[in-house]
Amino acid sequence: MSEVTEPISPESSWSTLERLLDRAEQESSPEAREAIMQSVGLFLQSLGPSDTARCFDRLDEDHRNRLLEYLDAESAADLIESLPTVQGTELLEHAAPEKAAAILEELPSDEQADLLTTLEPESFESILAVMDPQVAEATAALAAYPSDTAGGLMVREILAYQQSATAAEVIENLRRRIDEVDDYDVQYIYVTDDDEERLVGVLRLRDLLLARGSRPIRSFMITDPVAIRVDTPLETLVEVFEQRSFLGLPVIDGEQRLLGLVHRDSVDNAFHERDIGAHLREHGIVGGEELRSMPIALRAGRRLSWLSVNIVLNLMAASVIAAYQDTLSAAITLAVFLPIISDMSGCSGNQAVAVSMRELSLGIVKPLDVFYVWRKEIAVGAINGIVLGLLLAGTAWLWKGNPMLGVVVGTALAVNTLVAVSIGGSVPLILKRFGMDPALASGPILTTLTDVCGFFLVLSIASTFMSQLTGT
Amino acid sequence: MSEVTEPISPESSWSTLERLLDRAEQESSPEAREAIMQSVGLFLQSLGPSDTARCFDRLDEDHRNRLLEYLDAESAADLIESLPTVQGTELLEHAAPEKAAAILEELPSDEQADLLTTLEPESFESILAVMDPQVAEATAALAAYPSDTAGGLMVREILAYQQSATAAEVIENLRRRIDEVDDYDVQYIYVTDDDEERLVGVLRLRDLLLARGSRPIRSFMITDPVAIRVDTPLETLVEVFEQRSFLGLPVIDGEQRLLGLVHRDSVDNAFHERDIGAHLREHGIVGGEELRSMPIALRAGRRLSWLSVNIVLNLMAASVIAAYQDTLSAAITLAVFLPIISDMSGCSGNQAVAVSMRELSLGIVKPLDVFYVWRKEIAVGAINGIVLGLLLAGTAWLWKGNPMLGVVVGTALAVNTLVAVSIGGSVPLILKRFGMDPALASGPILTTLTDVCGFFLVLSIASTFMSQLTGT
Repeated sequence: MSEVTEPISPESSWSTLERLLDRAEQESSPEAREAIMQSVGLFLQSLGPSDTARCFDRLDEDHRNRLLEYLDAESAADLIESLPTVQGTELLEHAAPEKAAAILEELPSDEQADLLTTLEPESFESILAVMDPQVAEATAALAAYPSDTAGGLMVREILAYQQSATAAEVIENLRRRIDEVDDYDVQYIYVTDDDEERLVGVLRLRDLLLARGSRPIRSFMITDPVAIRVDTPLETLVEVFEQRSFLGLPVIDGEQRLLGLVHRDSVDNAFHERDIGAHLREHGIVGGEELRSMPIALRAGRRLSWLSVNIVLNLMAASVIAAYQDTLSAAITLAVFLPIISDMSGCSGNQAVAVSMRELSLGIVKPLDVFYVWRKEIAVGAINGIVLGLLLAGTAWLWKGNPMLGVVVGTALAVNTLVAVSIGGSVPLILKRFGMDPALASGPILTTLTDVCGFFLVLSIASTFMSQLTGT
Repeated sequence: MSEVTEPISPESSWSTLERLLDRAEQESSPEAREAIMQSVGLFLQSLGPSDTARCFDRLDEDHRNRLLEYLDAESAADLIESLPTVQGTELLEHAAPEKAAAILEELPSDEQADLLTTLEPESFESILAVMDPQVAEATAALAAYPSDTAGGLMVREILAYQQSATAAEVIENLRRRIDEVDDYDVQYIYVTDDDEERLVGVLRLRDLLLARGSRPIRSFMITDPVAIRVDTPLETLVEVFEQRSFLGLPVIDGEQRLLGLVHRDSVDNAFHERDIGAHLREHGIVGGEELRSMPIALRAGRRLSWLSVNIVLNLMAASVIAAYQDTLSAAITLAVFLPIISDMSGCSGNQAVAVSMRELSLGIVKPLDVFYVWRKEIAVGAINGIVLGLLLAGTAWLWKGNPMLGVVVGTALAVNTLVAVSIGGSVPLILKRFGMDPALASGPILTTLTDVCGFFLVLSIASTFMSQLTGT
């Protein structure tokens, strides 16, 4: 009984790996080097995927490339399967095309397609050129499907039998193909018409197990199987798997020919990766992809390209303050409250964004529900605006001894809270409606609009009541 | 062939549902009402879980409670399975205890436990009181496990056989239990010692399928099975399932007795829900749970409890400005730049938070890697700080025609960017290290610290160079 209580988590695994790689390099005899690399392979296997990724993340480029060079294709394929796609692609681009091709052939077809589609076109071509022509053709066909469609997510390794085969024949054939069966992680067997082309049914292992041997599989298969077209987009796949409890679904082309199988796991992972990407993009990391082990210039550039847009938007908002500089000079205490109103409105707006993003992902609001969302948001915004406005007004009055200052900043915050929740709640739905990334909402759009509006409210109200404010 | 291209998504399904419920209420004859409710049941089935949740979300409380009252227990259980737990719990609390008990008995044991643990204690007691005493005891035992442990996530419905049974006996028994087998979504069969107590092995359906009938299952089961203790926490379960490709794992107690089965799906869902909760908490929604259909006072209260803490932190930061009010009076243009520096630093810091959160969730950084993360962050922070500082300095100079103003705000932004990425990158790891929610970092902690530091930098640099700044 191997009882799991804590996962393996060795603290300085990458230095062990570095030392092993350095020793392998110093070895002059190929046998000794191979022996060391076998222990490297075992060492990597003993780590789980996340520890492998972590360990790999810490290696410098030199050690990384050496690791791939020394490992045999099978172990290298195992390694690449454990890594985020972005790291796997980078490794393959640094490897010799022959080595890269050998590694790719060891990978399941969906991983192959993932990696190939993210490679630079030149690397892609040079790897295909050294592959077995037949394999290369099939691989290129798979890589041609966009990675966020059923075609890009499917595996081609499936078990299919003709409908006239009997239960006993299928079981006998499965016995002979036992190794393959072990590799495929089979839950369903697919049934085609007798030309072996069109999908006509699905067989569950348990039904095969419980059926009499002489019966043709046609007689106990699930007819009218649910199948998905090869060009079905990821969002639809997520909804389909959410509505039905299948572990996998067959993929067909326009003529109902069976092409492959999409696993629930692949769909979930692809969606989760996109989610995480969205979270990074929401915070302004262009492309939604950053690992700290990437080159500094790349990381800085991706973050900067958004920050520099943001600074322009900030300047636009600040120009509202500049326009009211005289008002501000006359009542300098207002400057203390401007950043508070900007930050508080941003927070209120972001709460509304977060709830909209969640309700969109749960499917309980759709892009057309803008009015419903807005109605629900202003109700909360009105309450919170009044409470926060009173809080800030009271504080300003007590702190600065000026009741009119309280009225100005309190009113501005109350009104701007309403504005912020209205924008925050509805913008994600509007962006989604136009096919854009709703995560963008919480960043520049929300902040700029609430800042412009907040600064304008404080300063215009203040200039209207200037005489009462300054007591002159 | 049912080909899925677009999921069903009827736009105004809740008004259909409302109309059906209103008609059901007007019917005086029980038969007619039952007939209508049967069509309501079919209507709900035709929607997927997310559309059911969306449709339900729009019903008012009166219609919701009527829906549960009129539906039979089985349809009501189907409905509750489609809803987020928070809505399901609310429904059960409004139902008569007898009805609630009947509905619970129709649900799989993990859903039961989820709902029961979130019920108010009084409702929980009154529902248990009307259940069959034996069922009540088992249910209460399951509900006693914390919901984020193996015990809280497991189902008790599993197939287990004694190790001395033969393949043929097991298959024969499965044939007799076919209905049960259909309900369980079986992938593995568990093998116990001959007292039917301790777990000694796991059987894959495919091995049972391919084995000769006379062999005892002991001879082809997987011995030394991986099992998890009933008190294993969610984080560990996530890592275990990530390191191994099992669809489910058996759950045992301290004496290795088989208690149930944890599905990969349940672990993924629980983790995803916690993730989404974290995203909401990150934006200051206390408890991490809000649906717009919840009562306004509850929603406003949860958002406010965080906003009001935030306003206090904001006032602390603003008091730095207040302390330098004379400096600000002397160079009023600075007031234009204070919100820019506050917002830009917040953004840079949040980028670092987002990358840390992602690397934590991928497992490629651990809480102890603070120094590594900080080293990687200051490299990027230095580049971005200099670029952004120069941008802001140039803008300030051109805009206000004052080079010294450019130096002051540019230097402050450059230095504060370094501060922000250092805090943003490391705080999530430090919070995680102390068992706190890393999502908290991007909110109050980061903003307050970067604001205090940013305002101090601008105003203290400005006051040092005041004569050059104002040209006096």
